[in-house]
Amino acid sequence: MKNCIVAQSGGPTAAINASLAGVIYGALQRPEFDRVYGSLNGITGILEERFLDLTETFQKQENLDLLKVSPAMYLGSCRYKLPKLEDDQTPYAQIFKLFEKLEIGAFFYIGGNDSMDTVDKLSAYAASIDSPVRVIGVPKTIDNDLVVTDHTPGFGSAAKYVASSLREVYHDTVIYTPKSVTIVEVMGRDAGWLTAASVLAKNSYCAAPHLIYLPEAAFDTEEFIADVKTLLESCNNVIVAVSEGIRDKDGKYISASTGKVDNFGHSQLSGAGKTLEYLVQERLDVKVRSIELNILQRCASHIASKTDLEESFQEGQHGVTLAAEGKTGLMVTITRTSSDPYTVEYGSAPVCDIANGVKAVPAEWINDRGNGVTEEMAAYIRPLIQGEPEITFVDGIPSYLPVPHLVS
Amino acid sequence: MKNCIVAQSGGPTAAINASLAGVIYGALQRPEFDRVYGSLNGITGILEERFLDLTETFQKQENLDLLKVSPAMYLGSCRYKLPKLEDDQTPYAQIFKLFEKLEIGAFFYIGGNDSMDTVDKLSAYAASIDSPVRVIGVPKTIDNDLVVTDHTPGFGSAAKYVASSLREVYHDTVIYTPKSVTIVEVMGRDAGWLTAASVLAKNSYCAAPHLIYLPEAAFDTEEFIADVKTLLESCNNVIVAVSEGIRDKDGKYISASTGKVDNFGHSQLSGAGKTLEYLVQERLDVKVRSIELNILQRCASHIASKTDLEESFQEGQHGVTLAAEGKTGLMVTITRTSSDPYTVEYGSAPVCDIANGVKAVPAEWINDRGNGVTEEMAAYIRPLIQGEPEITFVDGIPSYLPVPHLVS
Repeated sequence: MKNCIVAQSGGPTAAINASLAGVIYGALQRPEFDRVYGSLNGITGILEERFLDLTETFQKQENLDLLKVSPAMYLGSCRYKLPKLEDDQTPYAQIFKLFEKLEIGAFFYIGGNDSMDTVDKLSAYAASIDSPVRVIGVPKTIDNDLVVTDHTPGFGSAAKYVASSLREVYHDTVIYTPKSVTIVEVMGRDAGWLTAASVLAKNSYCAAPHLIYLPEAAFDTEEFIADVKTLLESCNNVIVAVSEGIRDKDGKYISASTGKVDNFGHSQLSGAGKTLEYLVQERLDVKVRSIELNILQRCASHIASKTDLEESFQEGQHGVTLAAEGKTGLMVTITRTSSDPYTVEYGSAPVCDIANGVKAVPAEWINDRGNGVTEEMAAYIRPLIQGEPEITFVDGIPSYLPVPHLVS
Repeated sequence: MKNCIVAQSGGPTAAINASLAGVIYGALQRPEFDRVYGSLNGITGILEERFLDLTETFQKQENLDLLKVSPAMYLGSCRYKLPKLEDDQTPYAQIFKLFEKLEIGAFFYIGGNDSMDTVDKLSAYAASIDSPVRVIGVPKTIDNDLVVTDHTPGFGSAAKYVASSLREVYHDTVIYTPKSVTIVEVMGRDAGWLTAASVLAKNSYCAAPHLIYLPEAAFDTEEFIADVKTLLESCNNVIVAVSEGIRDKDGKYISASTGKVDNFGHSQLSGAGKTLEYLVQERLDVKVRSIELNILQRCASHIASKTDLEESFQEGQHGVTLAAEGKTGLMVTITRTSSDPYTVEYGSAPVCDIANGVKAVPAEWINDRGNGVTEEMAAYIRPLIQGEPEITFVDGIPSYLPVPHLVS
């Protein structure tokens, strides 16, 4: 019987701890694994021998339950990228030395694209030295831009936050009679999935967001102004959802096109939302406001998607199953077996097929004008935001699992 | 038996519809009132004869329940200020003409400072023409800056959002080892109550926000940089809560002190958070980010305070009682009769005592350095954020009462 070790990496999501809970629960259930270690701050915790023994803590069901609904990363994160195997094997040797010391049989890395690159490299190194250590990737990213898998853990919760916020912004905005434009900037530098989720705010009475712009469609300033102008003729309060990564036909970020200078004389980058706010202010005679959803869209666990948390937990568990079956160099994937009713199956794919790809929004899910998304897109995202986890409030505030080892 | 009419005005809150529900419920219960009308877009709906008969809609309990938890204003808002009585009586005559036509016995105005000014003027006009119409103000403002009353409807919900968001931002931020500063800008141009609520994010493991700046304490740039620097020595991730209205010792807004110019050559105002972000970027060698909570802090009904919604409902009802008892020119007030256990009583005060006052945070609730608040402040706000309303989610999104008459 061997032990296992798990780590988290990249940007936080509301579901990455649910995957951690799944890995821990899975490992505690299986006879192949004894102790479960957690490396602090991703792979750097292994390099620096900073880790915890999670076994006792998470044998308590209440800790596991609380972990599942807690935002961001219980084990902390890192942005460390391993050197190429052919360039420098030193960190690899260091990592596997600790694995040996802790009698590690499997390493689980929960993260996005960069973490899958690490999984790829570590499993290749393991093969090269004939190590029996299994290396398995468990995906997460609010961007939903990993290839092969139907969608990624964390996306559904962020999508629920974005759509719910847009609905609330609609209620807040529609109360005034003077014409106005409200621009909501959503995360997603290269892929527009999360911005597209704003479409779910629409219902029988809520037409917002009236316009939706993704990085996948070239943004045309003149068309944007024309579209807002037309809308303002029939509607008092126009609401626009825009991805932070929108760019013009030459691929130049709209957010970078401003020439603002701060009080120290330095040029400052505005976000896409702020840039469009200035543009509307300049070109149209209406009240305009921009809202950046910022990091709350990825850490607002109090409005996470239950479906997302459940699936994230299952994916963590499935990763353990893969390792227990002796597999390595794989990332857990999810396949949608039916849309109505929504059903999924958990599987896996070689991590090398995933590590460096980016799944963009398909052109056919964006309308011809490039200012909205299709019903197919809405139907794809809708099942992912369903259900609400049970959140306990203590003293009026959502109660999450403390991260004492990371206290700041 | 007479009818009554109700309207909403000013900026939205998560609780202003709970007060509306209270007024409607109260009026439907009392024998003194028959039909309940709702004026659209505040007092302007009365001036322009745009109103609804709310009686049948809200005899249905499910509509009343849904109204109670819906953000912003079912009846829409306005920013209209009545002229001084001695300058121009035309709009007054118009308003009372509609009152006569609709056989109105009482007008309820739910709003902040400006709306209380309207209540004051209308009740004075009513007295001057010997009109029997009662005019009653029901307070609301997330700013909590109305005098006489212990606190204002809408504040508790916004405070719960601010404190919960700060806790979630802490979880999001603490995961990284490189040192960082995160600045969270909270609404409140003149009063720091809402920013002060961020203190409730602190608990046994969460030291955030490490610094809290209110408009009531002069902001000193050098002290701020020094304080952040000192904190960074012992803590990786410093989190700062700052009111949008912070100003220097000469009363000059910090948010206005930037000299940024947009791509059209126009000078742009940055918010206080953005301005501090640029300052930290310039002066300290750390990662820095600013987050503007923006309008979500006032319209995120999905995380409203149950205490706030309940009290708002009661205040609406109490307004109806006052009118039914023949009183006029009053605003409903709330008195805290005990802090532990928290108990309140509903009362009233002449609206002229309230209309033009601003309740600032008392100096003794701000620490000597001007970068934090005291335990007395926390104890004052804590009861106001307790409890969670029952929110129904439809298709993954919070379900609120449609505002079809305002469709945009």
